[in-house]
Amino acid sequence: MTKEEFRKRAHELADWMADYLENKESYPVTPRVKPGEIYSKFPDLAPELPESFDTIMQDFQRDILPGMTHWQHPSFFGYFPANNSEPSILAEMLMATLGAQCMSWLTSPAATELEEKVCDWLRDAKGIDPSWKGSIHDTASTATLSALIAARERATGYEINHRGFTGKEKFRVYASSQVHSSIDKAVKIAGIGLENLVKIPVDEHFALVPDELEKAIQADREQGYLPLMVISALGTTSSTAVDPIADITRICDRENIWHHIDAAFAGTALLLPEYQHLIEGHEGADSYVFNPHKWMMTNFDCTIMYLKDPRGFVHTFSSNPEYLKTRQDEEVNNYRDWGIPLGRRFRALKLWFVIRSYGLEGIRLKIQGHLDLARKAEKWIRNEENLEILAPVNFNTLCFRYVSENTSQEELNSLNEAWMNAVNQSGKAFFTHTKLNGNFVIRWVIGQTDVEEKHIQEAWVLLVDTLKATRKGF
Amino acid sequence: MTKEEFRKRAHELADWMADYLENKESYPVTPRVKPGEIYSKFPDLAPELPESFDTIMQDFQRDILPGMTHWQHPSFFGYFPANNSEPSILAEMLMATLGAQCMSWLTSPAATELEEKVCDWLRDAKGIDPSWKGSIHDTASTATLSALIAARERATGYEINHRGFTGKEKFRVYASSQVHSSIDKAVKIAGIGLENLVKIPVDEHFALVPDELEKAIQADREQGYLPLMVISALGTTSSTAVDPIADITRICDRENIWHHIDAAFAGTALLLPEYQHLIEGHEGADSYVFNPHKWMMTNFDCTIMYLKDPRGFVHTFSSNPEYLKTRQDEEVNNYRDWGIPLGRRFRALKLWFVIRSYGLEGIRLKIQGHLDLARKAEKWIRNEENLEILAPVNFNTLCFRYVSENTSQEELNSLNEAWMNAVNQSGKAFFTHTKLNGNFVIRWVIGQTDVEEKHIQEAWVLLVDTLKATRKGF
Repeated sequence: MTKEEFRKRAHELADWMADYLENKESYPVTPRVKPGEIYSKFPDLAPELPESFDTIMQDFQRDILPGMTHWQHPSFFGYFPANNSEPSILAEMLMATLGAQCMSWLTSPAATELEEKVCDWLRDAKGIDPSWKGSIHDTASTATLSALIAARERATGYEINHRGFTGKEKFRVYASSQVHSSIDKAVKIAGIGLENLVKIPVDEHFALVPDELEKAIQADREQGYLPLMVISALGTTSSTAVDPIADITRICDRENIWHHIDAAFAGTALLLPEYQHLIEGHEGADSYVFNPHKWMMTNFDCTIMYLKDPRGFVHTFSSNPEYLKTRQDEEVNNYRDWGIPLGRRFRALKLWFVIRSYGLEGIRLKIQGHLDLARKAEKWIRNEENLEILAPVNFNTLCFRYVSENTSQEELNSLNEAWMNAVNQSGKAFFTHTKLNGNFVIRWVIGQTDVEEKHIQEAWVLLVDTLKATRKGF
Repeated sequence: MTKEEFRKRAHELADWMADYLENKESYPVTPRVKPGEIYSKFPDLAPELPESFDTIMQDFQRDILPGMTHWQHPSFFGYFPANNSEPSILAEMLMATLGAQCMSWLTSPAATELEEKVCDWLRDAKGIDPSWKGSIHDTASTATLSALIAARERATGYEINHRGFTGKEKFRVYASSQVHSSIDKAVKIAGIGLENLVKIPVDEHFALVPDELEKAIQADREQGYLPLMVISALGTTSSTAVDPIADITRICDRENIWHHIDAAFAGTALLLPEYQHLIEGHEGADSYVFNPHKWMMTNFDCTIMYLKDPRGFVHTFSSNPEYLKTRQDEEVNNYRDWGIPLGRRFRALKLWFVIRSYGLEGIRLKIQGHLDLARKAEKWIRNEENLEILAPVNFNTLCFRYVSENTSQEELNSLNEAWMNAVNQSGKAFFTHTKLNGNFVIRWVIGQTDVEEKHIQEAWVLLVDTLKATRKGF
């Protein structure tokens, strides 16, 4: 493609993008396609000859677009959002054009230094200890895995990095029973093993019980285990439960255990000063992760992890082969050593665009708006006789279900699942589920960039109407 | 930012992007900034109030752009390229707009199925066994780490995932002495330890010597070690040496060792049928990784890893917490289980745009052009009395240095380093270095999307002129 054609096509796409953002509500949130349907639309072999951009865009619109789940639809209420925004998309356009690979300071000084700056900005705005330093990762899964590896190495004087496990290390890792599956994955990868991830009981709010944690640590010590890390959640995935950070820090400090705080989704709420009490006591912890790509209008992927002691962390991951050495290595941050992958995108740019375009005040207004909508939806649900909310609404996530007397948990679960599937099949909204104490609950996460009261009102009508139809079918 | 303003700004950026691509040669390849200079340009605290897009763009142009290393400059000859292209950038615009998070089939069916299709296309175009299946990762570091973990689990019946290391597993991993630092990092993370990464001697072409590999495996077996994995390189990072894939496969097959082929950079050359003999015998290997984001005009990040047995691999990484379960789980690929991170971008879209826009023929022409330019530059260097090329030119990477009689290796190294630094400081071209047998060599990688003969001619004149000046200073 010539540079002239690129200009023409980029303008065409600018309009396509603006049109899409204006009309994103007109798409079904999830598509009506069957497994294999899209795969089979394309030829078995790659084209030998160039195809025109018009052809490619026609195919994109005809074959790809109708097969997409529209994550930016205001009525996407599933999982946690990965909400984007106009300034973030514009930054992605520049990032893609510059095509910089930001593994080292030298490979893009501005990217490295802007990364340090925006991480500092958000640290201070969130009330995180000003001595901590952040860097950007792709996802919380990878960042948390890297924290676990760093904890493992700190505990062994970096010996596993050198010699591998010897069998003497009987590590234990602790998290609540509500812990995210990425922690299961991390203990597996790190060689610690799922059996050594101890799931601590939670209270009626699904928050870790510190006494139970202490008991588990004590029991493990007596059996010769080495407690390595506690992962606390500031907003669990199922129900956004908040573990008692200060209590856990106190235990970890006394026991010399790495305390990692997983605030992947809810961490954005700390931009509101009234939520910052939730991380009181974090100063004694070791690491804290949150995803601007979930609820801070910044395109996926963009995770920030803050560290109390970046030096020990970097020591875990640094390698300095001849072909990567630069003259500045002693004076700069080479962020390749702050995590697992070597190559890195210029993700700081989109954060910078988002923070400056919204201003902290604008971001706060946006998330406060989501929290307000969640309060409204909560009231509607609580006012319905046959609906119940099964977890505290700590942020903007509601866990609710239909309930009726003299119906078994199994039947209720089937009915609620059928209800959710019927709602989703309408294409007008999208919810996902979890189980709390064995009960199937629908999760309603109100965090899309453009979600407004009308969207939750429409979703509410849809829910109520669909429930009636679903109950008839049972 | 309103949707109306977005449209206006997207058009402004479309022009900015087209201008940048037209004028990218006018920037110094690496910037003239000192560590800390850019960081200090920005205020200590994030802005409270929204700032206008004009202000942000002004700051971007004034403060960020002059601090960038321009990876897309045709005279960027360092590291390996991360070359992009117009169709890829256009696809990134759509990806950012859709903002889809493609962890599961349901979270974007079209993304999942297009990923399978483009991986199949490239597999067949590269002559990889048609029974293998690919998926997209961020980087080769992460993909290779995941292959190592899968090998570890296959060898232990998934026991380390469950119980952690017990101390009985005395694993050994093998690679040539030229192995990439990401393998060092991977054996550390996987709990195997650097001491158990056995670096096998290379021949005069920097390729692994199969006899030495056999000897090392034999010696380890006698000492009670369990040989786990061999990483062979199709194009090492230092000098693009090619290990004997067929010989290594034969050894690995006999010894029941996982054979991982790292073709991160040079793998793109397999699109040219005359290079496909390099992977003869790969059918018996287990995994193969290459980076379209290096030399295939596809924006970073985009790595593909092909697997002979995806089921065992997926078994290593799969987790199915309640909140991620979908009704289609039995019939579809959920690519979150094909690697380490949970969240995933819609990277297949840019590959599809690139492959269709260029056609396989267009991609082949482009890389053949780079290979031809490298042959030319090779001749120029070989014709200079005081220059020598210290490694075979297997693809488009030249490893050369200035040499003179009666000069110590140390002095020569200093002189060559000073020479390279002086060239780089001109801002007209950018080279990086490595060491081969202790000799400092300059690496000249000719793989930028828009590099033409005039760029290598100018670089050659710059090299020769700068050498004269550098020698005077010594």
